[in-house]
Amino acid sequence: MKSTLVKSIFRNPAQYLNQEIEISGWIRTSRASKAFGFIELNDGTFFKNLQVVFEEGMENFAEIAKLATGTSIIVKGILAESLGAKQPFELKAQSIIVEGECASDYPLQKKRHSFEYLRTIAHLRPRTNSFSAVFRVRSLVAFAIHQFFQEKGFVYVHTPIITGSDAEGAGEMFHVTTLDLDAPPRTEEGKIDYSRDFFGRETNLTVSGQLNVETYCMAFRNVYTFGPTFRAENSNTARHAAEFWMIEPEIAFADLEDDMELAEDMIKYVINYVLENAPEEMAFFNEFVDKNLLDRLQNIVQASFERVTYTRAIELLEKAKDKFEYPVEWGTDLQTEHERYLTEQVFKKPIFVIDYPKEIKAFYMRLNEDRKTVAAMDLLVPGIGEIIGGSQREERLDVLEKRMDELGLKKEDYAWYLDLRKYGGTRHAGYGLGFERIIMYLTGISNIRDVIAFPRTVNNADF
Amino acid sequence: MKSTLVKSIFRNPAQYLNQEIEISGWIRTSRASKAFGFIELNDGTFFKNLQVVFEEGMENFAEIAKLATGTSIIVKGILAESLGAKQPFELKAQSIIVEGECASDYPLQKKRHSFEYLRTIAHLRPRTNSFSAVFRVRSLVAFAIHQFFQEKGFVYVHTPIITGSDAEGAGEMFHVTTLDLDAPPRTEEGKIDYSRDFFGRETNLTVSGQLNVETYCMAFRNVYTFGPTFRAENSNTARHAAEFWMIEPEIAFADLEDDMELAEDMIKYVINYVLENAPEEMAFFNEFVDKNLLDRLQNIVQASFERVTYTRAIELLEKAKDKFEYPVEWGTDLQTEHERYLTEQVFKKPIFVIDYPKEIKAFYMRLNEDRKTVAAMDLLVPGIGEIIGGSQREERLDVLEKRMDELGLKKEDYAWYLDLRKYGGTRHAGYGLGFERIIMYLTGISNIRDVIAFPRTVNNADF
Repeated sequence: MKSTLVKSIFRNPAQYLNQEIEISGWIRTSRASKAFGFIELNDGTFFKNLQVVFEEGMENFAEIAKLATGTSIIVKGILAESLGAKQPFELKAQSIIVEGECASDYPLQKKRHSFEYLRTIAHLRPRTNSFSAVFRVRSLVAFAIHQFFQEKGFVYVHTPIITGSDAEGAGEMFHVTTLDLDAPPRTEEGKIDYSRDFFGRETNLTVSGQLNVETYCMAFRNVYTFGPTFRAENSNTARHAAEFWMIEPEIAFADLEDDMELAEDMIKYVINYVLENAPEEMAFFNEFVDKNLLDRLQNIVQASFERVTYTRAIELLEKAKDKFEYPVEWGTDLQTEHERYLTEQVFKKPIFVIDYPKEIKAFYMRLNEDRKTVAAMDLLVPGIGEIIGGSQREERLDVLEKRMDELGLKKEDYAWYLDLRKYGGTRHAGYGLGFERIIMYLTGISNIRDVIAFPRTVNNADF
Repeated sequence: MKSTLVKSIFRNPAQYLNQEIEISGWIRTSRASKAFGFIELNDGTFFKNLQVVFEEGMENFAEIAKLATGTSIIVKGILAESLGAKQPFELKAQSIIVEGECASDYPLQKKRHSFEYLRTIAHLRPRTNSFSAVFRVRSLVAFAIHQFFQEKGFVYVHTPIITGSDAEGAGEMFHVTTLDLDAPPRTEEGKIDYSRDFFGRETNLTVSGQLNVETYCMAFRNVYTFGPTFRAENSNTARHAAEFWMIEPEIAFADLEDDMELAEDMIKYVINYVLENAPEEMAFFNEFVDKNLLDRLQNIVQASFERVTYTRAIELLEKAKDKFEYPVEWGTDLQTEHERYLTEQVFKKPIFVIDYPKEIKAFYMRLNEDRKTVAAMDLLVPGIGEIIGGSQREERLDVLEKRMDELGLKKEDYAWYLDLRKYGGTRHAGYGLGFERIIMYLTGISNIRDVIAFPRTVNNADF
C-alpha cells in the first residue's frame, strides 16, 4: 500500500474520508492515556500535521504510547471526521509500525528554541514549524521566478561560477585554485605561476553573471540568470552572506522604463504565487514573525509603483535631514534609513529611484543627456529599503570606452563585452534581485542565516 | 509602438495577418536587387527568422539594401501572406530604422563555421542556428525539471557551493580561499594557517549536494537540488567539464524501486516537454546533428525501462567478451562500451542495472542481504550509456558505521550525517542526473563544451 500524502488529504479531504489509507511521517508530538492516545504526525509534504488517534485495543498500544518525538512511523487507518475543534479530520489508526526510532537526546523536544540555537543544528531545523515554512516558501519562490520568466519566453542562461574576470570590478572575491598552497609553483621572478593552475590563469568565484548574460541577451533578446554568487566581504551582519543566489534578467530593445515594468510585474507575480501556494506558511509568518506581513504584501500587489529621480529624492530627504544618522547630499549614495524614509514615510508604497550620479554607479550604466547621471534604478520597498538594483546599459561604444578610460579599466580585459556594442548592439537593460533578500521580505525573517539551508558567512562553513 | 515578438507571429499568424506591426531584431541574411530586397530577421524569441520585404519606394532604400549581417533594426510594416514557398508569411516593410550597426569584421558571416571555431567566440555563438537551438533547449529542460518536481510537491533545496567537507570522498576538488597565495599565514609549526582563511578552515567547491540534501529529505520527504558542481579532474575529453550542473532528488519512505520509477518518469517528462515546446529546434537537431534523434527519443518515451542486476549483466557481457576492449569480470565497473552493448544490443531500450558490488560504489549505499552488493542503480540509455546514477541509502546506523570504519572514514567528520540515522531515520533513496549530459542526449551534441554557455575545462576559463 502506497502512503497517501498529508497534503492531498488536507487539499481534498472528501476523497479520503471514511477510507482506509496509509500515511507515513515523523512524530511531532504524542500523548497518551491508558485507553487512547494522539500523535501529531508530519509527513513533510504539508505545513500542518495530521492527527492520529490510537486506542488500547491495538496490539502494540503500550509501545506506541511511549514513542518519542522525532520517531518515523507508518500508520494504517480510517480517515474520520474529528470531534475535536482543532482539526476537521483525524486518522483512526488500525496499525502503527515504527520505521525509525529517535534517540532520547533528540534536540528538537517540544519547546521553543531560539533561531540562534537552531542555526547550530542546521541539519535538523527544517523539522521545526518556522524552518519548514521558510524553506518551503523558498522553494516555491524559486519556481515562481522561473515560471514568471519562462511564461514570457525568457531564456534561462547558466552563467559561469568560476571566472577569470572580476565582473564589475566591485566586491572582494574568493580565489579558486588547485595549486598547492604550501609550496605553489613560482616563475623565474619568484611570482606565483598561475599558468600551472588548473585553468592556466588566476580564477575567482563570480560576483555577478550580468556581463556574461548580456552576450546571450544580444542573441535571445530576453534572458535571465538564476545562480549562486559570492562576496568575500568581511561583514558579519544579519544581511550579509558570502554565498547567495541572484536573479539577473536582461532585455534587449528595451530601456529603463521597460526594465522597471518588468521588475514590478515580477515582484507582484511572486507575491501572488506564494500567497496562493503557501497560505498556511504565510499565515504562520503573519502570526509569529511579523503581524503586518500580509497587509504589507497585499498593499504592494495593489500599488502602482512610483518613480522618482535621485535628484528629487535628495530634495525630499534634505527637508527631513535631522532625522538621519548619515548626511544627505547630492552625490552620495542613499543609506537604508534614507531609502526606508522615502518609501515608508513620503510615498507609502514601493518606489523606483532613478537617474543616480554616475560616480556612485557601475561603468556599464547608460549616461543620461545631462552627462552627470546614469539610467540606473533601485526599487525601494517599505520595511526593507532596496530590493532590486538595475540599469539601462551603455550601448554606445564610444561613450562606454570613454567611461572605461576615466575609470582606468583595461579595454582588452573587456574585449568580448565591447564586441556586443560593435556587432549589432541594441538598447538593453536589466536588474539584479538578491534571492535571499526577497525570501526575507516575503517571510519577515530578519537574518539571512535563517533563509539559507547551510549559510556561509565569516568563519562559518559548517555542514 | 511595442515590438511584436516573432514567436507570437509564428504561433498565431492569423492574429497579425494584414495588420500593421513593428518588429525588431538582428539581420541574419540580406539580399537586394535594384527594385526590392529581402531580410531574414531573427528577433531572438524564436528559432526561425521572419522574412522582411522592402521595396524601392522606401525613403532609405539604398542604405537598407546595404545593411550587413548582424545589424539590429526596427521594422514597421504589414504582415502579409507570402507568395514564396519557403515561408507562409512575410513582413512588407513600410519603414526600417537601424538600431545598431554591425562592424565589417563580424565573425558570423553567412557560411558554416566549425564548432571548434565557434567555441573561441562563445559570446557570439548563440546567434547561430545551432547554438540558438542548443541554449533554448537547455533553458526549457531546466524549467521542465523544476516543473516535474514541483508538480509532485518536491521542495527545491539550494545546497551549499562552498563546503568544508568532501562529500563522497571522491573527486578532486577546487580550493576556495582568500589567503594571500604569495605569503599565506602560517602556524608556529610552519603549516598553512587556515584558521585565518575566510571561513576559518579549509574549504572547497562542492562535488555533490547529496549528503546535504538528505538532511532536508528527512524533513520534507521529497526534495531535490539543482545547482552547479565541480571536479578538478585533469580530463580533457569531450565529456568532462570542471563546472557543470547537477540535479539530485532524494525521497523518504522510499526504496530503490521507487527511485527507479521516479527517474523513469522524469526522463519521459523531460523528453515530452522539449518535443512539445521546442519542435523547431528538435527538428533541426534531427536534420543536422543526428538523424536518429527523434526516433530514439520517441522510443524511450514509449518504452518500459528494464531492470537487470549487475550480476546478470556481467553474465550477458561475458558471452560477448570478444567484442570489448576492456575486460568483463564480476567486481569491476562497467565501461561505456559495456553499458552501450547492454542497452543497445541486448535489451534495445533503457535499462536500470542494479545491485552493484559494494566495493565499486560509495559508502552510503544500502547493503543488500547478500552482504556483497548494494542497492545502487545506473540508468543506461541507447546512444550514450549511463545517464543517471543513484541508490537507496544506508539508513541503518550500525551498518553505515561499520562500512565507514572499513573504508577508514572518520565518523566525527560525518556526525550530522549520522544524526539522520539516529533521529527518526527512514528508508530513503535518490539519484544524480548530470544536467549537461541530458542536454547532450536530447540534442545529439557530442561535446560538453557545446552545451555550456562558457565552459570551464583544463586550461580554459575564458569570458
